[in-house]
Amino acid sequence: MKDIEIAQKSEMLPITQIAQKVGIKAEAIEPYGNYKAKITQTSKTADSQGKLILVTAVSPTPAGEGKSTVTIGLADALSAAGKKTMIALREPSLGPVMGAKGGATGGGYSQVLPMEDINLHFTGDMHALTTANNTLAALIDNHLQQGNELGLDPRQIVWKRVLDINDRALRHIVIGMGGKSSGVVRQDGFDITVASELMAILCLAKDLADLKARIAKILVGYTYDGQPVTVSQLGVEGAITTLLKDALKPNLVQTLEHTPTLIHGGPFANIAHGCNSVLATKTALNLADYTVTEAGFGSDLGAEKFLDIKTPVLGKTPDTIVIVATVRALKMNGGVVKTDLEQEDLPALQAGFSNLKRHIQAMSQYGVPVVVAINQFATDSQNELERLQEMCQAVGVPVEVSNAWALGSQGASKLAETVLSSCQQASSFKPLYAQNSSLEEKILTVVSKIYQAKNVVYSKKALQQLQEFKERGWDQLPVCMAKTQYSFSDDPKLLGAPKDFEIHVREFVPKLGAGFIVALTGNVLTMPGLPKKPAANGIDIDENGKITGLF
Amino acid sequence: MKDIEIAQKSEMLPITQIAQKVGIKAEAIEPYGNYKAKITQTSKTADSQGKLILVTAVSPTPAGEGKSTVTIGLADALSAAGKKTMIALREPSLGPVMGAKGGATGGGYSQVLPMEDINLHFTGDMHALTTANNTLAALIDNHLQQGNELGLDPRQIVWKRVLDINDRALRHIVIGMGGKSSGVVRQDGFDITVASELMAILCLAKDLADLKARIAKILVGYTYDGQPVTVSQLGVEGAITTLLKDALKPNLVQTLEHTPTLIHGGPFANIAHGCNSVLATKTALNLADYTVTEAGFGSDLGAEKFLDIKTPVLGKTPDTIVIVATVRALKMNGGVVKTDLEQEDLPALQAGFSNLKRHIQAMSQYGVPVVVAINQFATDSQNELERLQEMCQAVGVPVEVSNAWALGSQGASKLAETVLSSCQQASSFKPLYAQNSSLEEKILTVVSKIYQAKNVVYSKKALQQLQEFKERGWDQLPVCMAKTQYSFSDDPKLLGAPKDFEIHVREFVPKLGAGFIVALTGNVLTMPGLPKKPAANGIDIDENGKITGLF
Repeated sequence: MKDIEIAQKSEMLPITQIAQKVGIKAEAIEPYGNYKAKITQTSKTADSQGKLILVTAVSPTPAGEGKSTVTIGLADALSAAGKKTMIALREPSLGPVMGAKGGATGGGYSQVLPMEDINLHFTGDMHALTTANNTLAALIDNHLQQGNELGLDPRQIVWKRVLDINDRALRHIVIGMGGKSSGVVRQDGFDITVASELMAILCLAKDLADLKARIAKILVGYTYDGQPVTVSQLGVEGAITTLLKDALKPNLVQTLEHTPTLIHGGPFANIAHGCNSVLATKTALNLADYTVTEAGFGSDLGAEKFLDIKTPVLGKTPDTIVIVATVRALKMNGGVVKTDLEQEDLPALQAGFSNLKRHIQAMSQYGVPVVVAINQFATDSQNELERLQEMCQAVGVPVEVSNAWALGSQGASKLAETVLSSCQQASSFKPLYAQNSSLEEKILTVVSKIYQAKNVVYSKKALQQLQEFKERGWDQLPVCMAKTQYSFSDDPKLLGAPKDFEIHVREFVPKLGAGFIVALTGNVLTMPGLPKKPAANGIDIDENGKITGLF
Repeated sequence: MKDIEIAQKSEMLPITQIAQKVGIKAEAIEPYGNYKAKITQTSKTADSQGKLILVTAVSPTPAGEGKSTVTIGLADALSAAGKKTMIALREPSLGPVMGAKGGATGGGYSQVLPMEDINLHFTGDMHALTTANNTLAALIDNHLQQGNELGLDPRQIVWKRVLDINDRALRHIVIGMGGKSSGVVRQDGFDITVASELMAILCLAKDLADLKARIAKILVGYTYDGQPVTVSQLGVEGAITTLLKDALKPNLVQTLEHTPTLIHGGPFANIAHGCNSVLATKTALNLADYTVTEAGFGSDLGAEKFLDIKTPVLGKTPDTIVIVATVRALKMNGGVVKTDLEQEDLPALQAGFSNLKRHIQAMSQYGVPVVVAINQFATDSQNELERLQEMCQAVGVPVEVSNAWALGSQGASKLAETVLSSCQQASSFKPLYAQNSSLEEKILTVVSKIYQAKNVVYSKKALQQLQEFKERGWDQLPVCMAKTQYSFSDDPKLLGAPKDFEIHVREFVPKLGAGFIVALTGNVLTMPGLPKKPAANGIDIDENGKITGLF
């Protein structure tokens, strides 16, 4: 059965009932239809925090890891074991839904609902971000048009426009044509909405006041004489914040098994920090005894940023880190091509285990207990599953197979037990680097400790920027490494656990509102394209509103 | 007191209670927060239709007419008189809110609530339209990129992108730069979302199936050998319709006096037909005994299109047409400049009355009783108000002063009485032209009977298109005249009641999905710009979410 069919057959509880489960009163939510709501206030205070479980994964491959599926299955299993549990997940982007990508709401019998709505417009957060981002862009170009008091250099405007659409033709454009009344001609481009700095800001803001303060700090460009210009100089942080007032409120939905789930914010895990909003995680921690959340891509990208960028703002560190691995992904890391994945291949599995091992090493440095969850696929052989468990045990890490995709909470009950006992262990979180160390020190720490690279090579431009940022006082901010998700190195083809490689920092991008400096180690595509046969061609809706072909 | 202050001080009823007033059950609405809802189904059938009151106006001037204020005040007064009343209004566009424009939710003590939400993201309809429009655009450019099987000519793509933002720099752009992987280079441009054909389609669709059928017919461009290409040839009408499934449902809100109000859809009244959705009007007619609705701009543009384009789809004609006039607007039509409006000027009022008179003549031809509502401003002198009433009486039209802005329903109680008795009169609707007459005949009819022009002059291009459309079978569609709203002529400076003028048709734009042919008589700006001091600079939100400076 397809995911959408399972979803359409299942019965949801009214969202007010889901809210009640974790003690949210009816007056503290704003319903969006009967099965979605925004949480406007939570009654508990920050000191009654539950346990936090961070789900991450091995390096992603085209075989799929099913991180969300494990997250949902684990939470459902915790709920089934009588624990007051909530999930905090990222919001899917609509653009890729029309392209080739599956949904971002789990799969099989571990899904969040209503899956069609969540994958389409949901509660409008993405659209509010698109509007806020592009309103700021229009105000910048209007400043150029109306006399350019600030002396903004049209060649040095860094604030791009966005759409939540895969539209390669908008990557590089020329705007302002058509004569004097239609703007100043300049080169520009659109990113996909989730790549907007506003998305990262929304996910790091503690409240409306913090949101506004961060927006005021956004760097929009430079003057002709090279001075940075921020939103506060344009005087429009109030208007942009106003456009995001509802988007800032976490969204409540439910799993197939009715576990309350917050889905809120979804920044990239390369040019941004890749986790759902601080507000959603905080809300879950305040309401539930166990919060299960996930970070983007593999642990080297998503989890590292969760721990080094989000955790300091959140004020709470994980009690257990779950690394999701699959036999298939490890076999691909061990050299098997996608079409051969269905055949048992123990040597390849063994070779690919090096990748999981390095993720375990990376995560173990934070002083938080680590658990491996093997997300079972129907094509995995029993031998392969057993061998993978043995290898994990050999390196001293608790490991469990999860079959939540096929069985829901039942398939993750053992994993839940293991995670519960892991959460009782002493966790003594150690930050990877000191917040006040220099940008270079931070990069070197991430690159040597997490990636196990031998050193960092800076381009001439990056070296100039390091000097410039020091002078501007920007180099005390955390670093956000933009690297390929497929490898620990910056070469997407070096799978497994590459050795003796260098990390090349090409350029820095200051994200002063989000509060981090992005280090680009390669080309990051911030506006995807559509494939030759877009998913859109298979999507349909009948006269009763029933959708087919969505996934 | 500012509109936003009145709005913020008033108490709203829960939207479920508003729904109950007109017999909508709780299960037939989807709440969006506590004070907005989408109506998913109505129980009554089309034959239990109430009375329909169409509110239109004299030619707009910078002095403001207050059509929405009168519409809301009249409906509140009908409610206060014990009549089961609903309002059907257009949705405001967000773009102009950040520019210079006031809200589109009435004013003073005749407003719809929650005004901030309605003027900002509301229930996301505009954003859904933006997304659907731009998804189609991305699919078209992807078709070019991926081999161009249909042979679409990049120079002849007529489907533009849209944003709900005033952004002049996007009017004329070049896209697809950046090399082979980033699209095909071509000239393009963005319109504001309300100018999208999808908006017109949403407002004319009878149901989901009709929506999809209309989307399939949209003309996206021409092949290299000049053949039209439609959405159905791209095979994506299902996906585009899926993106609009919720946007198609009418939105329920309330007035300050709790009259149930549907706000749904808001197409331009020049390049489109300028009325709220057929579904909203139909829903109101089914639920209430009196439905008050409005059309865009003056009667020559909005009401003409309501009667000639919307009415045939709606299957119901108005029982009374209310023409809103103000002393100020007529004085401007009589030659007074805006800064001198506060001085009594009876000769100018008398001269400007010619404009109202022509609107009365235009509307009287449809066989529907006409009433004039004088929307009172604080600066109007008693002499002026009396003189205007006398002039109306002299031409045999019932007239009442409305002071709903200052007094709410009380200020419109006499107008309500007059409208009620007008609705009891025999109304024998006569269409202006036969649907199967030729495009030229339709244009000549509108131009001679409504505008009182002496003839129509076609450009060379328009003449070629007339021939082409005949061959393609498109010339049986209704005409949608795109003309300046300031004058009956196509010259915005000819105020009052110009004579002996010609109407110049420059070009036709086929809107095959909406089902009409736009006749352009001048330059229509479909992407507004921001002013030197944008409203955005005055908008703010505090840490508790209280918005200031919105209007």
